[in-house]
Amino acid sequence: MATIVFCSVNKTARTTARRCLTSHLKGLASAGESHLPLPSTHSSSLTLLPGTRWLSRGSSVRFMSHGTAGRAAAGRTRRGALALGGAAAVTAAAAVAGFLANANHFQRAEMATKVLRDPEEREPEGDILERCRGFMSPPVTDIAVLQQTKGEMRTRMEMLIMETQAEFCKALQEVDGGTFKVDQWQRKEGGGGISCVMQDGKVFEKAGVNVSVVSGYLTEEAAKQMRSRGKVLKGKDGKLPFCAMGVSSVIHPKNPHIPTVHFNYRYFEIEEEDGSKQWWFGGGTDLTPVYINKEDAFHFHNTLKGACDKHHSKYYPEFKKWCDRYFYIRHRGETRGIGGIFFDDLDSPTQEEAFSFVKSCARTVVPCYLPIVYKHLNDSFTDEEKAWQQVRRGRYVEFNLVYDRGVKFGLATPGSRIESILMSLPLTARWEYMHEPAKGTREAKMLDVLRNPKEWV
Amino acid sequence: MATIVFCSVNKTARTTARRCLTSHLKGLASAGESHLPLPSTHSSSLTLLPGTRWLSRGSSVRFMSHGTAGRAAAGRTRRGALALGGAAAVTAAAAVAGFLANANHFQRAEMATKVLRDPEEREPEGDILERCRGFMSPPVTDIAVLQQTKGEMRTRMEMLIMETQAEFCKALQEVDGGTFKVDQWQRKEGGGGISCVMQDGKVFEKAGVNVSVVSGYLTEEAAKQMRSRGKVLKGKDGKLPFCAMGVSSVIHPKNPHIPTVHFNYRYFEIEEEDGSKQWWFGGGTDLTPVYINKEDAFHFHNTLKGACDKHHSKYYPEFKKWCDRYFYIRHRGETRGIGGIFFDDLDSPTQEEAFSFVKSCARTVVPCYLPIVYKHLNDSFTDEEKAWQQVRRGRYVEFNLVYDRGVKFGLATPGSRIESILMSLPLTARWEYMHEPAKGTREAKMLDVLRNPKEWV
Repeated sequence: MATIVFCSVNKTARTTARRCLTSHLKGLASAGESHLPLPSTHSSSLTLLPGTRWLSRGSSVRFMSHGTAGRAAAGRTRRGALALGGAAAVTAAAAVAGFLANANHFQRAEMATKVLRDPEEREPEGDILERCRGFMSPPVTDIAVLQQTKGEMRTRMEMLIMETQAEFCKALQEVDGGTFKVDQWQRKEGGGGISCVMQDGKVFEKAGVNVSVVSGYLTEEAAKQMRSRGKVLKGKDGKLPFCAMGVSSVIHPKNPHIPTVHFNYRYFEIEEEDGSKQWWFGGGTDLTPVYINKEDAFHFHNTLKGACDKHHSKYYPEFKKWCDRYFYIRHRGETRGIGGIFFDDLDSPTQEEAFSFVKSCARTVVPCYLPIVYKHLNDSFTDEEKAWQQVRRGRYVEFNLVYDRGVKFGLATPGSRIESILMSLPLTARWEYMHEPAKGTREAKMLDVLRNPKEWV
Repeated sequence: MATIVFCSVNKTARTTARRCLTSHLKGLASAGESHLPLPSTHSSSLTLLPGTRWLSRGSSVRFMSHGTAGRAAAGRTRRGALALGGAAAVTAAAAVAGFLANANHFQRAEMATKVLRDPEEREPEGDILERCRGFMSPPVTDIAVLQQTKGEMRTRMEMLIMETQAEFCKALQEVDGGTFKVDQWQRKEGGGGISCVMQDGKVFEKAGVNVSVVSGYLTEEAAKQMRSRGKVLKGKDGKLPFCAMGVSSVIHPKNPHIPTVHFNYRYFEIEEEDGSKQWWFGGGTDLTPVYINKEDAFHFHNTLKGACDKHHSKYYPEFKKWCDRYFYIRHRGETRGIGGIFFDDLDSPTQEEAFSFVKSCARTVVPCYLPIVYKHLNDSFTDEEKAWQQVRRGRYVEFNLVYDRGVKFGLATPGSRIESILMSLPLTARWEYMHEPAKGTREAKMLDVLRNPKEWV
């Protein structure tokens, strides 16, 4: 078992992350929050190290595969088409499931392109190797392969999801003081993933940030499902090589005044018989508070709206509605949280523009969430508030196990890496029979919002 | 809201329950357990009251319906065929789902009838009214209707499930010292149920015992599913009146040395165009310990085997295997617990014999489980043992939300009484990332048994 830890970050990413965070903290503070503690920059466990070298920190990165000893990172190559029949990690699963689902699709016909390229959204400076040094582990695809294919979308997306994982993990480590456990796992049929989990930390009960990059063939059933969505795809001998990748995360804090956050950004590529490629993006970021805090809700949604508006004025309103529809616990008649944005099957107006939008979303994860964490870091709470959090955690489990398409697809796929799929579950949860908060309480107000989704911006 | 509590029990049922329990306690004691505490008969909260009158105890029995004010018990009538479109409680859901599922069916052809009628299995003495006085609440069907139809199977089954609920609840109350919260709920399309829940008691973290008796029409989809099982059913204008009833229970104790138990016994009846009836029974009892205790496992399985063997020598071995197959958490590669028996679609050799078998099973619930509860009542436990219990509780939640057919059917049915369906979930559960017990530990031994189901008798 290899024992390497990648805990440095390149300067560009670090500076960008810090700039975003600071500007958003200021924004939130000016929105009426005067008691906002600034993020500590002198934490003894500060992980935003200035160096760019690989550093070993004594904890282990475990290279895992399913039932076999792990292969070393070196020597791995990306193969365009590998037999499907083994593991599919959560983001890949979500990507496939998202593709297959007959979700209410954003009306492409209505989309007029609005090309506003933000300087921050350009590809980061530096070569592939330099950028990889900021990751939580070596990327799934061999660095040499990434260097050779640096202009291809799958390479650019893999770099983006690895950077998003590193940026978010490091921001969480900084606030918590703990360290992520990093597991690199491989899928013998092609690809693999990197699961970063911090459990029972100072601030976070459970924090998981997962990257997966998998490839293989689509089954006949999957291909048929695709056709039912109106996309006729012809495979070579009925086989359709695909590649799915994504970054996904669920963060469950200990303090009931700090909300749970979830995000997932994914890319799917499928090759037809004639060599032409179908591709699309999906993703979203959504917030699950235990108690309603209007300023937090405004900040979260407004930050997402800002990222959306740079690309299309209809993205935020459409994807906000889609999010409320998707994260709905039907048997309870409540949404899981106060939403955010959710989209799938995005393949317009151009691949470049769609990627640029996804990049804006991915880069907004830290500024969406971290200011809220810092703001409530030292909020005191009662046993009753903690108990209500545990009941809401139970609802989170219900959504994830009963409705989440990625989880369902992952659990139904033989050989899936279950631990990566179920790392979204909280450390602890509670089910009370006939639990109904008394009228007028803050718990009842929270339920009211979940039963009647609101506009926050 | 009516506020009546039925907490008396008729003498016959009480005596029988006590005789069963005592004889089984002796059996277990003679199997090498000398430290077995006998059930307390002087508990201050003893609910096995000697009287047979309705007693009000100050706590409330809530009559509920879905979104409407409850109707009083009086005046309710059983209608043979009521429109389906609202609530279906968990047992009914389980019954329908069980019927619909293409489960590995016990080979009826191999069954030779073995008619051994135990004196204890005769219908209890006393008239319907007298027997109803021992129930946890008035039955779902109006007592006058039950009296008029006392020879019909649906009446005999409703009496059996009500008696099973009362007998089990009272045995649990006696050991815990707490009192069940009794909710009687109605389904506006026909029927209803009685949910008894005790939460955060002295011995039990959460104990739920649910009865439901529902009727309505089968949908076309359901009818089609039935046909695929080889049963061609013709309905009047495509509608098939049905009646489903059952008793189901899940008990989660606090002490990790006391196992969780689950049982469910159900009856399904469907009427064809020509007025002929299809009917079948289903059910089972299974145990989910946190740690393996061979004596407990032997006692539990042997008691079930005894009930089975009175009816057919193949019942226990076949239904034991079926149980291991059914309670399997596929994505974990483990069974939920150490099994017991599980059967469905039992419609042979005769209705009388099938009912007699189900009655034997239902009457064996208390002697299967209570001796194990008493035996471990005062076992001390460590924080580590409690934590392992919580991890196993997480697995229980995974099975129930992802695989359990009754739960899945119930959650998917609009208007279901969710609280009755999900009362099977534990009060608390835990998900640890990459939790794997160290080799040689008792936790690892438990996992080994769950991964490789054993023969216990």
